[in-house]
Amino acid sequence: MNGADLLCDTLLLNGVNICFANPGTSEMHFVAALDRKTDMRCVLGLSEAVVTGAADGYARMADKAAATLLHCGPGLANGLSNIHNARRARTPMVNIVGDHATYHLELDAPLTSDIEGLARAMSHWIGRVGHLRDIRKCTEAALLAAYATRGPSTLILPSDAAWGEVPLENISPIKRPEPPTVDPASLAACVRALRGGLNTAIFLSGQAVREKALIPAARISAATGAQLFSTSSGRYERGAGRIAVRSVPYSIDVALNVLKEIQVAICVGSGQPVGFFAYPGKPGTLLPKGCQIIQLAGHEHDLPQVLASLAEALGLSDKAPYVANTLRQDEIADPATNALTADTISIIVARRLPEQAIIIDESITSGGKYYALADMLPPHDLLPLTGGAIGIGIPLASGAAIAAPGRKVVALQADGSGMYTVQGLWTQAREKLNVLTIVYANRAYRILQGEMTNVGVKAYGVNARRMLELDEPRLDWCALARGMGVEAGRAQTALEFSRLFEAGLAANGPFLIEAVIE
Amino acid sequence: MNGADLLCDTLLLNGVNICFANPGTSEMHFVAALDRKTDMRCVLGLSEAVVTGAADGYARMADKAAATLLHCGPGLANGLSNIHNARRARTPMVNIVGDHATYHLELDAPLTSDIEGLARAMSHWIGRVGHLRDIRKCTEAALLAAYATRGPSTLILPSDAAWGEVPLENISPIKRPEPPTVDPASLAACVRALRGGLNTAIFLSGQAVREKALIPAARISAATGAQLFSTSSGRYERGAGRIAVRSVPYSIDVALNVLKEIQVAICVGSGQPVGFFAYPGKPGTLLPKGCQIIQLAGHEHDLPQVLASLAEALGLSDKAPYVANTLRQDEIADPATNALTADTISIIVARRLPEQAIIIDESITSGGKYYALADMLPPHDLLPLTGGAIGIGIPLASGAAIAAPGRKVVALQADGSGMYTVQGLWTQAREKLNVLTIVYANRAYRILQGEMTNVGVKAYGVNARRMLELDEPRLDWCALARGMGVEAGRAQTALEFSRLFEAGLAANGPFLIEAVIE
Repeated sequence: MNGADLLCDTLLLNGVNICFANPGTSEMHFVAALDRKTDMRCVLGLSEAVVTGAADGYARMADKAAATLLHCGPGLANGLSNIHNARRARTPMVNIVGDHATYHLELDAPLTSDIEGLARAMSHWIGRVGHLRDIRKCTEAALLAAYATRGPSTLILPSDAAWGEVPLENISPIKRPEPPTVDPASLAACVRALRGGLNTAIFLSGQAVREKALIPAARISAATGAQLFSTSSGRYERGAGRIAVRSVPYSIDVALNVLKEIQVAICVGSGQPVGFFAYPGKPGTLLPKGCQIIQLAGHEHDLPQVLASLAEALGLSDKAPYVANTLRQDEIADPATNALTADTISIIVARRLPEQAIIIDESITSGGKYYALADMLPPHDLLPLTGGAIGIGIPLASGAAIAAPGRKVVALQADGSGMYTVQGLWTQAREKLNVLTIVYANRAYRILQGEMTNVGVKAYGVNARRMLELDEPRLDWCALARGMGVEAGRAQTALEFSRLFEAGLAANGPFLIEAVIE
Repeated sequence: MNGADLLCDTLLLNGVNICFANPGTSEMHFVAALDRKTDMRCVLGLSEAVVTGAADGYARMADKAAATLLHCGPGLANGLSNIHNARRARTPMVNIVGDHATYHLELDAPLTSDIEGLARAMSHWIGRVGHLRDIRKCTEAALLAAYATRGPSTLILPSDAAWGEVPLENISPIKRPEPPTVDPASLAACVRALRGGLNTAIFLSGQAVREKALIPAARISAATGAQLFSTSSGRYERGAGRIAVRSVPYSIDVALNVLKEIQVAICVGSGQPVGFFAYPGKPGTLLPKGCQIIQLAGHEHDLPQVLASLAEALGLSDKAPYVANTLRQDEIADPATNALTADTISIIVARRLPEQAIIIDESITSGGKYYALADMLPPHDLLPLTGGAIGIGIPLASGAAIAAPGRKVVALQADGSGMYTVQGLWTQAREKLNVLTIVYANRAYRILQGEMTNVGVKAYGVNARRMLELDEPRLDWCALARGMGVEAGRAQTALEFSRLFEAGLAANGPFLIEAVIE
């Protein structure tokens, strides 16, 4: 066997049996090895942003690392923006980047570039197979780091390591590292704060917004009055039977207002909430001056366990009461209008959302109403854009559908962001994925039009219009979808949208609705 | 005025009057400034790989730097693969990357990343506007570096530098640095070699393959028998009246065979020719053992002047004879077959190519026959893929068309590579660009199928097929083009292709032909 075989076998033995890929010449021995592994499923993306975004969606739903195969520095570069999102979602992921043979690098052939340099900004771990004998150890280290740090690992595989012969060896699965224990002093500080009667908020992120963590958090909230907030997280378990958590608002002014009374902030996962962007004369952090901040645990901890420990330290048993959402989907009123707006779309989606659906949210300015209704819906998952790098929706939906084949994926997709990775629709068609994509066709980078107003520009001219509007020419999303083998329809009224939404729910493969909300 | 205004004014004063862009929130003050500059043309790309590829095409044809505007680390990352190609094409380019306000960075907001780290691998120069007072100096330094090093500069603009108020100042255009003079010892070594009767080859790249450089090179070749070869270059001036130069072949075996008799290699621009990839048991460099290598000049030199100096040192006057191509377009025989193949397409294109056309070549495995015919054609330019990072064709064509509005751009486009930046067709429609794109629809990453054979795999299974073939489902390129406002037609026979090619030549805007060559 060769090095590529050993790498694949190590992945498979550790449960990584899917590889999202767009290989090139330097990866041909790896492709040949993958071809020999019938237990490995290879999914092609027509650009690397599709590959990495799909791997992220897969890992968020499968709760295990996904592997990607990328071609040299430029292939990695194309995938970096969605690796950035995966990093912010705390997604375990192993990106295997092929490189020239070790001895070829000094020649600076056309495709040569500093792969480590490119990877560093978006990776928690970087390794290069320096010698063939290290290939198993390197692969295991990449996986261990992805799990221990909850984030992307980059494993650089020179082609001579892929093609070199290695002896057969007995390999056994890695043992995932035990998470660190929580600091008793921080735990005690939280107990004091929660018993102190001050206005306390718990900021939850990553694994702390999963159902298992939210139940003890909800007990704490019920017993102490602490408010629960979420900051950027890769996956939310929402709907009936689950716990309501308020997102920290994106708008700086709204966020400052919502948080202005907080006296103690307990952070579980990420740190204190901060502004998505800076604005002249406005603060970057969102908590009021003098607010006490306690960092109870980071993402390397077992966050459900951390919250259970906190509940226990507060004397709350497994029987302690908490408030869960109740199913109220049938209370959502018919929009009773035929005008198609962003909110009408959310209402129609909410009224008909099936149980165990997976919502992908890259709706940017259009999906707000869904958030107002989510707690009334049947149990479902929400995978949002985490790192602000647009172009995640279509691939994220693809990966989620691969991880959860029995469930309906409903992707709320802004048009401008969707065009970033539109080629991802082809992967949905090829893999016959159960994804219903709703494109909010407002023909603009609407969020930026709002931000122009925020920076004080009220009327703007040709250049700003040319950069912020997408209406000339109008994109025909149905043609684009069909051109890649995805069934599609256009809705200009609420009735048309409802009918297409029913058709999309019934479809047994990908379906796209161009929802015109100009 | 604010910092963003001063930055724009500095660009404009130095002749940079086009900005390829995809801005985000942190660039809103810059967008507002661009909006106040009516002399600046802003061209939107629907992903950053479109933006940077178009800037490259523009700069290659305009012979001056293009500017881009990119949004934070992820926006830069999306554009890096085409910046890599621009770096290999030695294209002067200033990439302006917006970042958070300086004081916001430490908060590690969701979009924060190490922009310098990302930029380093693909940039010749990196600068960050650390203080508002440096904004003009930084912009000038970025431009100077782009010209002096012939490559991409990255200028990072924190939003507080963009929005900060600066005093009005009188600014004057930068003076481009004088290129270094050529080393007399190297020049003398070349003269000795060329007079020594050994089998000598001159390897030309960058500005050394432009007409002005090739004329003295051709005189040297005529007087001494030295062969002229080209290695990777951004722009070739080809056809009648120009000088024939042989490309170093991509195939390692063919290249080794072509170069096996060379005893002295004179390198003008890049270094000695090297294999695009490494293969087991094959050398990485292409020149035979013992071949003398003289590096006469690098890309920082004035290469036309260097070659003129070498001709002069050899005693060749401006009257010395040389061999130029003669127009023989009408000798190209009709393919006399109705079967549409890659070669048939090249022949039909060659027979009808108009004078001063600009050929964009991202045909990968399909365009070879064009190269065999190019010297017979009317004078035209060729802009090839330089750095091996696919996804350049559609944007490169767009930028070239913007730089040369009176000329017909004919893009030879592989289907797999084309899908990387398919969203670039929208920019062609919006800007009404005179681009005729020919998609070689072979429904596969054909080059990789060949490379699989090269690594010894003759028959392959499901996983390799899933990664190398694009036939399931088939892409409907006409639907994709029309979905973005580009007129299109499908050709399955040579006759259909000829008719569509005529229609495309006559069109006054973008046109796409899906040429089916399965």
